[in-house]
Amino acid sequence: MPVFATAKAGGSPKSAARFFSAAAPFLEALDQFFSDQRSEFEPELRELVQYALSHSGKRLRPISLYLTGASADGGFNADMVRAAAVVEMVHLATLVHDDILDGADLRHKQETVSRKYGVPAAVLLGDALFAQALQLASGFATTEVCRLVSEATRKVCAGEIEQTLDGKAPDDDTQRYFRIIERKTAVLFQVSCRLGALLGAPGPDMAETAGEFGRHVGIAYQIYDDLVDVIGSEKAIGKTLGTDFASGKRTLPFILLFQELESGERENLLASFAGGDESAPDGVDIGKLMVEKGVAERVGEFFGLEIGKAKAAAKILAESDGGEGLYDLATFIEGRFAGLLGDENS
Amino acid sequence: MPVFATAKAGGSPKSAARFFSAAAPFLEALDQFFSDQRSEFEPELRELVQYALSHSGKRLRPISLYLTGASADGGFNADMVRAAAVVEMVHLATLVHDDILDGADLRHKQETVSRKYGVPAAVLLGDALFAQALQLASGFATTEVCRLVSEATRKVCAGEIEQTLDGKAPDDDTQRYFRIIERKTAVLFQVSCRLGALLGAPGPDMAETAGEFGRHVGIAYQIYDDLVDVIGSEKAIGKTLGTDFASGKRTLPFILLFQELESGERENLLASFAGGDESAPDGVDIGKLMVEKGVAERVGEFFGLEIGKAKAAAKILAESDGGEGLYDLATFIEGRFAGLLGDENS
Repeated sequence: MPVFATAKAGGSPKSAARFFSAAAPFLEALDQFFSDQRSEFEPELRELVQYALSHSGKRLRPISLYLTGASADGGFNADMVRAAAVVEMVHLATLVHDDILDGADLRHKQETVSRKYGVPAAVLLGDALFAQALQLASGFATTEVCRLVSEATRKVCAGEIEQTLDGKAPDDDTQRYFRIIERKTAVLFQVSCRLGALLGAPGPDMAETAGEFGRHVGIAYQIYDDLVDVIGSEKAIGKTLGTDFASGKRTLPFILLFQELESGERENLLASFAGGDESAPDGVDIGKLMVEKGVAERVGEFFGLEIGKAKAAAKILAESDGGEGLYDLATFIEGRFAGLLGDENS
Repeated sequence: MPVFATAKAGGSPKSAARFFSAAAPFLEALDQFFSDQRSEFEPELRELVQYALSHSGKRLRPISLYLTGASADGGFNADMVRAAAVVEMVHLATLVHDDILDGADLRHKQETVSRKYGVPAAVLLGDALFAQALQLASGFATTEVCRLVSEATRKVCAGEIEQTLDGKAPDDDTQRYFRIIERKTAVLFQVSCRLGALLGAPGPDMAETAGEFGRHVGIAYQIYDDLVDVIGSEKAIGKTLGTDFASGKRTLPFILLFQELESGERENLLASFAGGDESAPDGVDIGKLMVEKGVAERVGEFFGLEIGKAKAAAKILAESDGGEGLYDLATFIEGRFAGLLGDENS
């Protein structure tokens, strides 16, 4: 499966090629592991498991784990593969349940599980993936993996709860936005990198720093992803543009845009979305408005802070073990972000 | 909260009083633990957690864990309380998600979480309870607890999957019925008693036997509960009579009844349920039919086999540590079952 399906100007294809090709054998081992896992699920669920595990997007968490844990020559061990499977299964379980909450029809250009197989099947698939992931986690020699994974799962769930159930959230609350993405996204990147260090070449001493890398790169990636939602091309991204807005989730670009608008402009914008066709609200080009109001640049400032911290952590890790993979990953995401702004302004 | 809210003829109030009063301090400690746990959940979820944890029925799994693990003078330790909380939270999480799948309105005479707070809140509450339970499980010194609990959770989920998603199940498949209750019910009783032995007075050597007790008493209890559903009084039990039938779940009494009916009688019965008012199908008194066709007695044979195995295991455990609690528990459930038949036949 292609990672970042559309190559755009401003990315860093060279460094990208380097770390993606380095990670390829690891991702193959992960696919094999998932394939073997299918028989661990009930016959009634195997088609759904296959559907969920094989259309699972970019595998960024496993890639982060691999890049953190790989030895100088790119080698990895079976524990790393199993740990990556655990984290990715937790991630996929949360997506399956998220799509129930959002009533989403599409994810990565595919019908969502709840849409294709119904809500009961989606509830059960998510539960089974959670439980199977935790069972795999309990198979490690120490309680450390089980503890890290269950804590991370708990936090992801907490993020989803705040995002879904907190009805009185103000529109312009950037603190709330960062609290939610810290828990919904950053935590699983953080645990991926921690586990990579713990189980791979760097060792437990580097686990804390690796976790910090994961945390900041996860936040940066989510900021990028949320900007893609509003100024990216729907065709290229495969998500319904404006979904987050329509579902009442205020992502960073919208929070910043609302801060820039006069009260009348805000009402116009809200009214233009109220019709229900989020992808083309009446007479408002959201992407253009974002650029006009300088929102993309302000998003870029937040992004830059996070990616900078990620690169700083990556440098410390590189000094310790000589691996450039994490730095390359941060640089690649930075390039993608720059490319997004470049495309829009051109 | 009263355990088995309605006392009926045929129960064993004396032995019941003995083990329930012995378990009371443990259940109080569990309630305190749950009360302390509330602050571990997000503010948005605390009301729901409170709702789910405080209306949670009979606490039979914690009682089983306590009776297994208690010392000769009835003493218990903090690990036992924490383990009971873990198992009960997994149990409650599955109930919360079950009620979404079933579209159930009532559970223990209370509105279900999905009915009262909506499906998204119920999905999230179940996930949060699962994750919190596994996080608590990972806090024990060995991976054993985490492994036992995650395996049990996985099996409960598997039982639910077969029950909900297997569309081609034959009506008269007793094997399928026992396979499902083995996983949906017996597994959490089994793990409760294993953990009681492991963490309490009997010690790891008795864990296997304790688990066998739990497994058989769990199956026996489920058989009892399924019979209550069809010949018990709705007012006393607080469940919608016939719910299982209406939702396509064939419990043991219905499987056995169908075996006894001529094909014309079967169609009449199915037609009488098709109207949707399961509690009073047109012109058919299910409870009476069950008795007429000798179904209750045949259910009693299956029940007797299981409760007999449970009592045998309880004897082995009593010889080892002198505790009569598990034997009393089995005898109590046996008395309840006998009382149910007695009430119906009188």
